[in-house]
Amino acid sequence: MSGLTVTGTTITPIAVKDPPLLNSVGVHQPFALRSIVEVHTNAGITGLSEAYGDDPTLANLRAAAAALVGLDAFDINGLGRRVALALGQVTPDSPTELVGAPSVAKTVASTVSAFEVALFDAQGRALGRRVCDLLGGAVREAVPFSGYLFYKWAGHPGQEPDRFGAALDPDGIVAQAKWLVDTYGFGSLKLKGGVCPPDEEIAAIRALRAAFPDHPLRLDPNANWTVQTSHHVAGELDGVLEYLEDPTPGIPGMAAVAARTSLPLATNMCVTSFEDVPDGIAQGAVQIILSDHHFWGGFRASQKLAGICETFGLGLSMHSNTHLGLSLAAMTHLAAATPNLTYACDTHSPWQTEEVIEPGAVRFVDGTVPVPPGPGLGVTLDRDALARLHEQYRECGVRHRDDITPMRVVHPDWTGKRPRF
Amino acid sequence: MSGLTVTGTTITPIAVKDPPLLNSVGVHQPFALRSIVEVHTNAGITGLSEAYGDDPTLANLRAAAAALVGLDAFDINGLGRRVALALGQVTPDSPTELVGAPSVAKTVASTVSAFEVALFDAQGRALGRRVCDLLGGAVREAVPFSGYLFYKWAGHPGQEPDRFGAALDPDGIVAQAKWLVDTYGFGSLKLKGGVCPPDEEIAAIRALRAAFPDHPLRLDPNANWTVQTSHHVAGELDGVLEYLEDPTPGIPGMAAVAARTSLPLATNMCVTSFEDVPDGIAQGAVQIILSDHHFWGGFRASQKLAGICETFGLGLSMHSNTHLGLSLAAMTHLAAATPNLTYACDTHSPWQTEEVIEPGAVRFVDGTVPVPPGPGLGVTLDRDALARLHEQYRECGVRHRDDITPMRVVHPDWTGKRPRF
Repeated sequence: MSGLTVTGTTITPIAVKDPPLLNSVGVHQPFALRSIVEVHTNAGITGLSEAYGDDPTLANLRAAAAALVGLDAFDINGLGRRVALALGQVTPDSPTELVGAPSVAKTVASTVSAFEVALFDAQGRALGRRVCDLLGGAVREAVPFSGYLFYKWAGHPGQEPDRFGAALDPDGIVAQAKWLVDTYGFGSLKLKGGVCPPDEEIAAIRALRAAFPDHPLRLDPNANWTVQTSHHVAGELDGVLEYLEDPTPGIPGMAAVAARTSLPLATNMCVTSFEDVPDGIAQGAVQIILSDHHFWGGFRASQKLAGICETFGLGLSMHSNTHLGLSLAAMTHLAAATPNLTYACDTHSPWQTEEVIEPGAVRFVDGTVPVPPGPGLGVTLDRDALARLHEQYRECGVRHRDDITPMRVVHPDWTGKRPRF
Repeated sequence: MSGLTVTGTTITPIAVKDPPLLNSVGVHQPFALRSIVEVHTNAGITGLSEAYGDDPTLANLRAAAAALVGLDAFDINGLGRRVALALGQVTPDSPTELVGAPSVAKTVASTVSAFEVALFDAQGRALGRRVCDLLGGAVREAVPFSGYLFYKWAGHPGQEPDRFGAALDPDGIVAQAKWLVDTYGFGSLKLKGGVCPPDEEIAAIRALRAAFPDHPLRLDPNANWTVQTSHHVAGELDGVLEYLEDPTPGIPGMAAVAARTSLPLATNMCVTSFEDVPDGIAQGAVQIILSDHHFWGGFRASQKLAGICETFGLGLSMHSNTHLGLSLAAMTHLAAATPNLTYACDTHSPWQTEEVIEPGAVRFVDGTVPVPPGPGLGVTLDRDALARLHEQYRECGVRHRDDITPMRVVHPDWTGKRPRF
């Protein structure tokens, strides 16, 4: 086992059907983009990962992939150097407006992540060990996830209603929560807010509290409120919510909200890279950071963030963008090996009707995902599904995440500008 | 390679001859204590590490060792849990006054470290990989160390002069530095201060600067100066020193010094555990942290500290207590895999005339230690030396580090109380 060297990389963009989930920027397009990364080694072992699939991400992945031939699969430091060199003075871009402003550091971090996860998968397969074992050992064999509630239309404009139905008021949200809890067993619930006027979202949270008296509840308006509105909502929901996520934009704004509420504030928007951490802590802007290996820079970078949270007394949860089972497996291994993960993780999984991995390895049991027992990430690509989803990518025409344009179909004057309330 | 489980542990205390090196607390005893930890596994592979060897440390190591049978050698998180449980409400103690006040967290951390290093050695031996590869990959194949200068007597009271000779004034320190640079090739120099009146130590630094115009220089009085004295020395040596280490006790004192000098301040005394980090950073008390896997909690904890230093813009160097080649190998692997190690590491190695590992694997080349190429830490115990040093431990009667009592042989009224100047 002394040689495990990268010989080449395959990057396959895919598109998966996505329902019309509403958020502060707009609405999900009919297709969400992902990419499947396969890192091949001289030992005949291939490591897998799942990453963003928009055009700028794909360009970065391809530029970096060419620089990885010959890399020792254990050399995570070397991966970082090679990716940074390969991307050079990259133009910062972000796969979504919902994870903070783009920066060169974040572009490098998300590119490193895509390969680092695959290298760990390859290491684990070569050693016959689970990725969580290589990350320090599982402190939990099943990782709790939160049920992710969305305001949504019945279907995309001009299309048939989808299987999930509409949810545009408290009753619709409670019905959706019942489906999520009944089907998956989620023990906590998060509402993607910033969609309706704040008092309607307060009413939805109160309806959830009535229907689920013991479920921890979260609300995430994605920075769509002013500081003043945030104070109002925090006052109404103090003692009701487990935490309030990104009520308002920016570290100073979040600090102003935090100064006047005992409700813990969480973020995946104002502290989204290590560059943001010192200011976020010094200003007391957040009490909980939602990590995400996809944009923090991979497993090791996420553990670095976890160490900072532990040291500075911050809570730690996990953020989710639309993803498939390969990312869910990676999130599960990381969360299993993170002692101070103090809250259930987010996941969009229930909203995806298509999958790229073989069934069985990653599944929900009582609101948790048991760590897949196999070596590496413990999952296998479904080659037929991969080919089908790639074909769907080729045909669908979507090349960037854009939540604004599809919103204009219904609201022609929509700008997505925040804060709106 | 799916099973690598701890079956038992051997802990062997040893004593090594130590010259009369002076510091702010007093003087080194004729013998320094270490312990050699061997962690045995079901695969027939044994992992090694070197730890403190005083009585409280040995009691903690033995209490924890009993709890490790059955532990997966990859389960570093599980190691931490088992050690914390085994030590329970341990009475905090410290193997030396020179690394800050004792605490339960630090006692657990140093115990974890002793076993964690051995588990990584076992992992590496089992996988045929170097420990630095398992820590993320070597960013440097040779680790720079600093030449460690000490005021010293010609020999221990009542004993023959040792091979190193006396060093009690600037000429003696410069002569010592010439020996260290000529013999080992050190590219930077550190003077253990806090021994003579500050103006004499300023003169010693100026003499070093004249003799070694291009060598970065450091001065470490081990918190033996008041804030006022520290201001005086910092004023005299600003622009001369690379950094000033622990001039005065405590975070507030260090912050008061830092506020009035542009000389970077380093510490291994006021920020010595993760509990100290938030205050140290918030008060701007230090610009450089000297990590030490022995008391920060092992390799992974040291990487966590490195991540914090990188995130908060702090420099990172490495502290040394008296140690042998097994610890030097561990320090070298860790430093090799730490990208933001921004300064050469400290080492007491030249002052030790006895060794516990087979010769050849760890050596100084041009002031650096090349990473040992073999699997794990890459070193092998010299069983004859181990037996001899253990016998020396049995006979020498030393069971604690005590720099004060031997100082009283020469200065009967010595208290070791700081700050003295």
